[in-house]
Amino acid sequence: MNFSFEVKKSAGARRARLTTPHGVVETPAFLPVGTAASVKALTQEALEELGAEIILANTYHLYLRPGHELIRNLGGLHRFMAWPRAILTDSGGYQVFSLSELRKVTDQGVRFRSHLDGSEHLLTPEKAAEVQLALGSDIAMVLDECIETPAPRDAAEAAVKRTTEWARRARKYFLDCASRNGDLAQWQFGIVQGATFANLRRESARQLLELDFPGYAVGGLAVGEPHAITCEMTAEVTALLPPERPRYLMGVGRPEQLADYVSLGIDMMDCVLPTRAARHACLYTSEGRVLIRNARYAQDQRPVDPACSCTVCRRYSRAYLRHLFAAGEITAAILATHHNVHFYLDIMRQIREAIEFGNLAKFSSAMHARYAAGPS
Amino acid sequence: MNFSFEVKKSAGARRARLTTPHGVVETPAFLPVGTAASVKALTQEALEELGAEIILANTYHLYLRPGHELIRNLGGLHRFMAWPRAILTDSGGYQVFSLSELRKVTDQGVRFRSHLDGSEHLLTPEKAAEVQLALGSDIAMVLDECIETPAPRDAAEAAVKRTTEWARRARKYFLDCASRNGDLAQWQFGIVQGATFANLRRESARQLLELDFPGYAVGGLAVGEPHAITCEMTAEVTALLPPERPRYLMGVGRPEQLADYVSLGIDMMDCVLPTRAARHACLYTSEGRVLIRNARYAQDQRPVDPACSCTVCRRYSRAYLRHLFAAGEITAAILATHHNVHFYLDIMRQIREAIEFGNLAKFSSAMHARYAAGPS
Repeated sequence: MNFSFEVKKSAGARRARLTTPHGVVETPAFLPVGTAASVKALTQEALEELGAEIILANTYHLYLRPGHELIRNLGGLHRFMAWPRAILTDSGGYQVFSLSELRKVTDQGVRFRSHLDGSEHLLTPEKAAEVQLALGSDIAMVLDECIETPAPRDAAEAAVKRTTEWARRARKYFLDCASRNGDLAQWQFGIVQGATFANLRRESARQLLELDFPGYAVGGLAVGEPHAITCEMTAEVTALLPPERPRYLMGVGRPEQLADYVSLGIDMMDCVLPTRAARHACLYTSEGRVLIRNARYAQDQRPVDPACSCTVCRRYSRAYLRHLFAAGEITAAILATHHNVHFYLDIMRQIREAIEFGNLAKFSSAMHARYAAGPS
Repeated sequence: MNFSFEVKKSAGARRARLTTPHGVVETPAFLPVGTAASVKALTQEALEELGAEIILANTYHLYLRPGHELIRNLGGLHRFMAWPRAILTDSGGYQVFSLSELRKVTDQGVRFRSHLDGSEHLLTPEKAAEVQLALGSDIAMVLDECIETPAPRDAAEAAVKRTTEWARRARKYFLDCASRNGDLAQWQFGIVQGATFANLRRESARQLLELDFPGYAVGGLAVGEPHAITCEMTAEVTALLPPERPRYLMGVGRPEQLADYVSLGIDMMDCVLPTRAARHACLYTSEGRVLIRNARYAQDQRPVDPACSCTVCRRYSRAYLRHLFAAGEITAAILATHHNVHFYLDIMRQIREAIEFGNLAKFSSAMHARYAAGPS
């Protein structure tokens, strides 16, 4: 199997290299989110130019539209979206809980209605694995039970229990397919749940470790709880995870928080923030957030971030970007997204470098200080 | 003045080179429309890559937002939008008539309310010239009176009279500025009106010729009348225009019509069709229009146009583009616009080549036949 995870440096923060059938991913890595097989407002050429080595796509969305069978028939997701590099797909669980209607969770799975046309579907651990095998992503996530937060302890406990049972079934389905069909060219990751209860987090991690996944995710965090709690829960989990396997913290985070998670031993992160914020005229810069619609930028000839080397900052002024947003131009989203994704990927490059030079703590506190101060 | 128009071949269809302070434009040329200082869904990098040598921007829109004074303060439109190549601005007349509210036309000018905030403005021939000088476009258009079509003869006659009078005032304003300030680094074009009345078209052209513009546009056509009438009116005008000056047919046209206009002696054309149609999932190809939302393309692995060399057709399938439109992805507009603008600019490249080889008529009839047959 064309997968490996080679840890080069590991003392809290880890510097590693994830090899997939679709290329190498230097970690710690940030995954831009391409929900419906498109990172909104970016072409795949732009993603390549930006240096993205892995992106995330959503099983829930692709299952409903255009359908995983269609994508399989067309040669899989990489070919469908003309993206030759690595892809991670989530299980669809989080979207079922956040987007769909009339969901009903049983031990069997989640019954829900499509947010697109109201059609009824049943997502089981086996189905989520099957869909992701059809998509042919490099890394697939197991179906987990996501609960509302803050969660009472008994609800969190029940969700951990079910998540483990679902992980067991997903793993079995995956391994059965593998023994029938040989190499599946996919890695399946488990997801640790447990809300904000440290002992539930540890219990969830221990149970999943028995299932021997090649990688582990930490789910159900960064959903409203304080950053310190996110870090505490993450640390509880990473302390138990095998050092030789990749760890993925799902759905994070703000620019200044990325190094915090890395310092807790996280290798991969994804977040809609850089792309979604861009479409809402929020630009991340080395000096903090720039809300580009602000009138103060109307005649500002400086680039969005004078310290940035992206093609947007090399060419366009704040005044022009502000105008594009005011005029409702599509190009506003294109340029802002390009910059923000560059900024996130560049942070990760700096983080990897900082780990190699042993000064991640310094990098992290400088980022926090800049983001606390706000833009000049 | 860094302007010249060098006609290299002129026998009906003309092959020429327009030199501007912002580079050379090989003609016949198509101008992508960048209404609010942005060709919708394309970055300036993309426009350069596509080979656009000149684009059109709208005085009406830029006057209202962000304002011509602001753009002048920031160094002019080229610098504002980071576009180093040529720009033509229209006078705003057409937009006042099509977009604004409560307009009132007098000999003085047009009083109107902004479609953005209802504020009241007066656009005079002098003001339109002043705004375009502030924008610093390479080619500026005089304010003309646009009337509803089909127009009764007396209305068309009155509009011609007023258009000539306005052109006289615009020319005077422009030349007065030039004599005060020296080289204005701008060419001002007159606009021939006359609706669908051949003798009014000829009268309008003759009156404008007396004002000695460096170039002439044909306005008020392709607004609903049959293509044959558009061609007839265009021919009436170009027959009278001086061969050594550029001719610009405003607001045309469909892909298969471009060569027709060129064969009547037109050098420049602009149209929102390739960009607007792209956003509505209509793709122009060498085999006709492809309405990419059609279910027949759901599993179609071919590029939009197998004969096309654009980056979209080299990478993405019809199935993927259809999916992007179905999912409402911004990337759908980006890719479709890129392809359509490439297609239009490529037609113009082929037209220029056909003129040089003397086989434009053959090229034109092949295009008409393909577009009559529709996509395979």
